Amino acid sequence: MSHEPYPSWELDISNPTFMIWGTNTDVGKTLVSTGIAVSVLSSSEPSNCHYVKPLQTGFPVDSDSRSVYRNVCDVLRSRKSGRILASNCILKLSSPAAMALVVSESEHLRNDGREGSNGSFCYEETQFGEEMDNEGGFELICTTIYGWNKAVSPHLAVEREGMAVDDSLLMEELRGCLKVSAGGGQRKGVFWRLLETAGGVASPGPSGSLQCDLYRPYRLPAILVGDGRLGGISATISAYESLKLRGYDVVAIVLEGHSLKNEVSVFSYLRNRVPVLVLPPVLEQLSNLLDWFYESRDVFSSLQEVMLSYHTQRIQRLHDMRNKAGDIFWWPFTQHKFIPKEIVTVIDSRCGENFVVHKVQNNEEMLISQFDACASWWTQGPDAVMQIELAREMAYSAAKYGHVMFPENVYEPSLRCAELLLGGVGKGWASRAFFSDNGSTAVEIALKMAFRKFMHDHGILDAKVVDPSAVIDIKVLALSGSYHGDTLGAMEAQAPSAYSSFLQQPWYSGKGLFFNPPTVFISNGMWSLSVPDCFSSDILKQDDFRFYSYDDLLSRARDSSAVARCYSSYISDQLLQFSSSSATYIGALLIEPVIHGAGGMHMIDPLFQRMLVNECRKQKIPIIFDEVFSGFWRLGRESAAELLDCLPDVACFAKLMTGGIIPLAATLATEAVFDTFKGDSKLMALLHGHSYSAHAMGCAAAVKSIQWFKDPSTNINIENGRKLKELWDVKLVNQISTFHLCETGCSVGNCMRN
Amino acid sequence: MSHEPYPSWELDISNPTFMIWGTNTDVGKTLVSTGIAVSVLSSSEPSNCHYVKPLQTGFPVDSDSRSVYRNVCDVLRSRKSGRILASNCILKLSSPAAMALVVSESEHLRNDGREGSNGSFCYEETQFGEEMDNEGGFELICTTIYGWNKAVSPHLAVEREGMAVDDSLLMEELRGCLKVSAGGGQRKGVFWRLLETAGGVASPGPSGSLQCDLYRPYRLPAILVGDGRLGGISATISAYESLKLRGYDVVAIVLEGHSLKNEVSVFSYLRNRVPVLVLPPVLEQLSNLLDWFYESRDVFSSLQEVMLSYHTQRIQRLHDMRNKAGDIFWWPFTQHKFIPKEIVTVIDSRCGENFVVHKVQNNEEMLISQFDACASWWTQGPDAVMQIELAREMAYSAAKYGHVMFPENVYEPSLRCAELLLGGVGKGWASRAFFSDNGSTAVEIALKMAFRKFMHDHGILDAKVVDPSAVIDIKVLALSGSYHGDTLGAMEAQAPSAYSSFLQQPWYSGKGLFFNPPTVFISNGMWSLSVPDCFSSDILKQDDFRFYSYDDLLSRARDSSAVARCYSSYISDQLLQFSSSSATYIGALLIEPVIHGAGGMHMIDPLFQRMLVNECRKQKIPIIFDEVFSGFWRLGRESAAELLDCLPDVACFAKLMTGGIIPLAATLATEAVFDTFKGDSKLMALLHGHSYSAHAMGCAAAVKSIQWFKDPSTNINIENGRKLKELWDVKLVNQISTFHLCETGCSVGNCMRN
Repeated sequence: MSHEPYPSWELDISNPTFMIWGTNTDVGKTLVSTGIAVSVLSSSEPSNCHYVKPLQTGFPVDSDSRSVYRNVCDVLRSRKSGRILASNCILKLSSPAAMALVVSESEHLRNDGREGSNGSFCYEETQFGEEMDNEGGFELICTTIYGWNKAVSPHLAVEREGMAVDDSLLMEELRGCLKVSAGGGQRKGVFWRLLETAGGVASPGPSGSLQCDLYRPYRLPAILVGDGRLGGISATISAYESLKLRGYDVVAIVLEGHSLKNEVSVFSYLRNRVPVLVLPPVLEQLSNLLDWFYESRDVFSSLQEVMLSYHTQRIQRLHDMRNKAGDIFWWPFTQHKFIPKEIVTVIDSRCGENFVVHKVQNNEEMLISQFDACASWWTQGPDAVMQIELAREMAYSAAKYGHVMFPENVYEPSLRCAELLLGGVGKGWASRAFFSDNGSTAVEIALKMAFRKFMHDHGILDAKVVDPSAVIDIKVLALSGSYHGDTLGAMEAQAPSAYSSFLQQPWYSGKGLFFNPPTVFISNGMWSLSVPDCFSSDILKQDDFRFYSYDDLLSRARDSSAVARCYSSYISDQLLQFSSSSATYIGALLIEPVIHGAGGMHMIDPLFQRMLVNECRKQKIPIIFDEVFSGFWRLGRESAAELLDCLPDVACFAKLMTGGIIPLAATLATEAVFDTFKGDSKLMALLHGHSYSAHAMGCAAAVKSIQWFKDPSTNINIENGRKLKELWDVKLVNQISTFHLCETGCSVGNCMRN
Repeated sequence: MSHEPYPSWELDISNPTFMIWGTNTDVGKTLVSTGIAVSVLSSSEPSNCHYVKPLQTGFPVDSDSRSVYRNVCDVLRSRKSGRILASNCILKLSSPAAMALVVSESEHLRNDGREGSNGSFCYEETQFGEEMDNEGGFELICTTIYGWNKAVSPHLAVEREGMAVDDSLLMEELRGCLKVSAGGGQRKGVFWRLLETAGGVASPGPSGSLQCDLYRPYRLPAILVGDGRLGGISATISAYESLKLRGYDVVAIVLEGHSLKNEVSVFSYLRNRVPVLVLPPVLEQLSNLLDWFYESRDVFSSLQEVMLSYHTQRIQRLHDMRNKAGDIFWWPFTQHKFIPKEIVTVIDSRCGENFVVHKVQNNEEMLISQFDACASWWTQGPDAVMQIELAREMAYSAAKYGHVMFPENVYEPSLRCAELLLGGVGKGWASRAFFSDNGSTAVEIALKMAFRKFMHDHGILDAKVVDPSAVIDIKVLALSGSYHGDTLGAMEAQAPSAYSSFLQQPWYSGKGLFFNPPTVFISNGMWSLSVPDCFSSDILKQDDFRFYSYDDLLSRARDSSAVARCYSSYISDQLLQFSSSSATYIGALLIEPVIHGAGGMHMIDPLFQRMLVNECRKQKIPIIFDEVFSGFWRLGRESAAELLDCLPDVACFAKLMTGGIIPLAATLATEAVFDTFKGDSKLMALLHGHSYSAHAMGCAAAVKSIQWFKDPSTNINIENGRKLKELWDVKLVNQISTFHLCETGCSVGNCMRN
């Protein structure tokens, strides 16, 4: 099934391409664009320039592209700086804007306008300079993509004049528009590209999305036009922060100089790390702009240098990254011998569910969006809106808490997170939250909890006090094919496999009793069981192993079936057999409910897991659910325990809990488990928790993420989650079966796209 | 030695206390303050109101406190709303401001002014309303703390007029000023307090610090006055983000309504979670403000309700947190039985090296700053400036990367972090960086690396291929008293101790050969060695164990001493004895160089550790340095390896690496170690790294932190680091000796303050 919910795109950034942002409306963005364009076209090594105004309101009275076109031409004519081909085009107009254009600008419309390059409506065009008859010369292309007539924010203009543009269409138009100046100097020389935004950094675009969010996927380097007036320090710094908060690189800040010397404060705030350039004041003499551009030529020349140097270094760094990665990284789970430099993926950024990667194609430097198909396996990427919300939350909690100690302390995110966990995935059974920083550690902690509870319930602790030298061997009951993490302790709870081999785990001994579980597969549209030999029995019929739906498989009606009796008796026999050896105990049951994640996406017969839980409970063996993979709606329910319809004594959560951006794990437990750690000695306490000083940010991310997932109006946006939810809800059986083909390293996301 | 580098403070927040921030200058902050004051003083259950303008420029022509004073009085007089006592005071004036006040306002100065409450210069005072002869009535106190004459930003006014005020003095004055209205309704009824800032949120204060940074320690809840004009959406959102980026809670946004309906976009951006209130437009008719306040009375009444509800809920939550923490948290390393609710610390926020905690004292709700003495033990808190820089970096990297997969990929923070590590703590030996998420995991990874290298060098891998069933027992050589983390695998590398007892670690067997090391203590001003019996020898004299300075102890001249020979022969004897049993090997040396951190801050004789390294190197046993505690200038040098003057094959770093705000660890290794993992099978690779999808933010924090520490102009601010550096540099011997008194849970910081 081909399924393309994420429009992918490519953008050629071989040429210097910058966005011009303004601290506010009316701070001189267009003058700055003009000044850069003049500098580019008239420097000692001139280049072409493509100026783009994606959103223009107040058109045609206001037209920044016309202003750039005319002013650049005027300045260059006055400087006699070589041959220039200049044009000013508009791509799309609202009806009122189009009518107004015809009325007001008819003298400029040659032949009632004509088709410009790129399907645009090109209504101004000129050539001037020496050697006019010769081919060539440098080009200035000015383009307005969308024009509305009313001089208000684009989202209001759309309300009045129509021509609604959703964000992805706008981005597509922008890409299309930029093709005219693509090519990295190969085809038509270097083309500088200046994209001027409308209003302030957080002014809405036509859809109502803020422009700083809207243009975020390309993350083009930013030039911020600051404000030199009273109040301008604050406005400039806040605008800068809004850009940083969305992952933009601000290459330089330019502002008009005034007696207030705002630049000094802004530069000091930036710790002198971002250039702040000061333009001569424009004052009211806009009538004589030629003088102003003359006065400011050195500033724009410096700015152009700063921009070029940034661009060159950025491209160089993107190349170096690919080369250096293989030299200095030691990637986990990676045989470096298999990874030649060419296949290393250089990730420039991520936006929502897409990576933006850098590639060189036909000698062109490309940014390419690429669906993050791995996310669904390891954890899950938040969508673009949630990503920005999480970023703000991270900033807020880093500023509010930074590093805080946890033991004996309480602070809001940790408490709120514990409340959300206990009222959500722990609802109905858990009363305590123990935080750590990854699923593997959470499992080790769970084992410590369960073992203590077991030893308490079975009098082993008392026996050990009487005879401290007594050798007691506590093992865990677990399933072959499950995977509980990479730390050495968690690995001991895994059945022997390639991962636990001597080569990987010289200390591995396998401290468990491991059962081979019945698994689920799909055959001819039927849900079927693959049952290990140990369960084969004369009383079981073919029909006991085949189901019309996954719900049938989950049904509690099966609890009284022959299969259930068969499972139960096998389990109790095995436990009996095991416990016949003295001083060796099964101290915990540890399972991944419903599905073995990292072990290969094998679905386990839920009945078998339920019978395991039942038998262990009978024998007072504590139950641990490892929900690191399955937790938080990964399987369409808040926890896989809901699907299994069983409650554990201890459960582990991680991965998706923080939206994947920060390591955090939680081990939840019942009060009865917690109570077995109470005593008169600190050594009775649970001594574990290495990163417990850094939970504030992790918990803040978790609070944001869990609330986001829980919110029915937003969780539909978690595309992977939605897709997996569909999978369970509407039972797309063919796709489920492809799970079994997955190998570690391959991803559910990938499978689902095939 | 009493040492108080962190002025501590207390602030009574029993009364509703808010800061009024403006999106920019001239958006109507003072009108909003006035409106709230009117609402407070004239609601159905009126309260007192204390309005404070900490920084006023343009004084006395501009005086927001006078404006509030007069307008509130006018409105209340016109409404005949009960008896009011009102005053307007100024605390400190620059000379030009004081002179201008005398000249321009003489008609208002009664008896040439008089001392007001709180030592202020109270130049306007009035009473009105019914029952004037009766005592009591509600009070309006308006206070300007600092006034300058020139109408420019305070930092410029200071340049021209003097009266420089550093940030801590300003905060102290503010606390002093607020005392007049403290007391939580106990003494004089409820006092609302409104603190109005100057200019925009990021406008500089008198020292040049931005006001949003300056007022950060109290983190008072914020009312943001937005901008309803063209461009106001962007300005309002950016200002809001600057406040969030510093950990402020924005309780409500208020803006003047215009036809542009900026409130709709702002509210939508806030996802409807922060109230946005719309005031009637002030237009130009400021002449008839009475009408405007009448028209806007419902808005201010709603705003007051929002504020009161926020205040009540905040105080309630601070109380609940203390109670709930003990009910639902399971703290690590904590015997819950020992922690009654009363001793739980409620952390409202952190600013630099101080926590701000909530306590109830004499029935008053107090925020109290408290030095984070634990930070130096577990990790280290960045100072206030770095905290804000880190917060911005976190926002930037969360927005830029969110969740990104690491294996086979490269992205800037991970690469830059690896470069910084290899060029810093790994300089001269390491060529590979392996990231994980805590020190304990980093140690487990280090063990896997070292064992593989050992087996490769000693032909054990080949032997295992020939006979896969061969039992091979690989152990680690480590020191008693060292501590390498809490995961079960790292715990195996620790000598038996209370932490590894059966109660804590049912699976612990102690997979090591553990030496009892000579330790360092200070006696009568001399650095002395405490040498275990095994090293006692007739040839060693008293003087061999006593040193005048720590440098003498570190000196390489000792390498050829009798003590060195004694150490060496002991080590080689022990290794020989151990290796006599077949198929059991020492596969790695694991030490914390120079000092055993969590194990009790015991200093180890560096000569002994150097001899260990030498002997192991001779026998081709890979060397692991666990620098999780000591790395990154903790001991005055970038790494403890520098002090020891030895290079390892593998080293572990964590804690301080990210400034403590995010879990991240790195295991560095030589290329020779890395090469032993190359092969034709993925199973030859290093299969470890559970949280490897979340390194972008951790690495970004590390890059910021490491660069900060390296910067000589900033690392002086890392106060704990500096103090420890002094300790080593100037050898404050008494303090070093107190290290030995520390127990786990106590902190270096604490010790150093005694």
